[in-house]
Amino acid sequence: MKLLEPLKWTADGLIPAIIQERGTGRVLMMAWMNRASLEKTLETRRTWFWSRSRKKFWMKGESSGHVQVVHGISMDCDGDALLIEVEQTGAACHEGYRSCFFRSVDETGLDWRITEPRFQDPGAIYGTKS
Amino acid sequence: MKLLEPLKWTADGLIPAIIQERGTGRVLMMAWMNRASLEKTLETRRTWFWSRSRKKFWMKGESSGHVQVVHGISMDCDGDALLIEVEQTGAACHEGYRSCFFRSVDETGLDWRITEPRFQDPGAIYGTKS
Repeated sequence: MKLLEPLKWTADGLIPAIIQERGTGRVLMMAWMNRASLEKTLETRRTWFWSRSRKKFWMKGESSGHVQVVHGISMDCDGDALLIEVEQTGAACHEGYRSCFFRSVDETGLDWRITEPRFQDPGAIYGTKS
Repeated sequence: MKLLEPLKWTADGLIPAIIQERGTGRVLMMAWMNRASLEKTLETRRTWFWSRSRKKFWMKGESSGHVQVVHGISMDCDGDALLIEVEQTGAACHEGYRSCFFRSVDETGLDWRITEPRFQDPGAIYGTKS
């Protein structure tokens, strides 16, 4: 597939994918893709990743319902990172925040603070609460 | 340093850093930081990275003058990626584009197209033209 040719993969066959929300421009998360997940993302217009910890191919939202509809895919000048523009259903973060980047360096420059309210209860997202 | 504790580094001691432009929300580039480059970034409010190809500690803009003034640093829920909000001088990309993500998947879904005009001549940036 011609589209894959300029891309540079890690030794493990992965490329980092930055997920950005359409409209707000908010960066929601970063995850890893392999060739199969990029092909599946192109084919289905939903985001598919490779989980390094679970060694598993997964679709964002497959258990939470919080799918990402893909509106655009860009690569950087070196072909070693992807930027994917999506429309996000619900919270992107499994902890219930809109974005996974909900902690920022605080005023002291020495610690982190949470910068936004939780959007959803993570227990409710994953059905661990009745 | 307490700030570094929750961060997860690769086997090579690196963490990916997504650089986002303050105001526009545009994602400009992705690069890698090691502990020293994050500490130097916090200290100087300029972005410092680790180049995997050149095995070199570098400040963005050190040769081009296109520095990034840091306005905020966030980490993701897993502590394995950073998001850094910056004010960018000139082009972020060494090819003269405002963002390194200047190529997107085209209408056919089979190839890439350039999505913006060059902002600066790369020869002029690096002084290879008189």
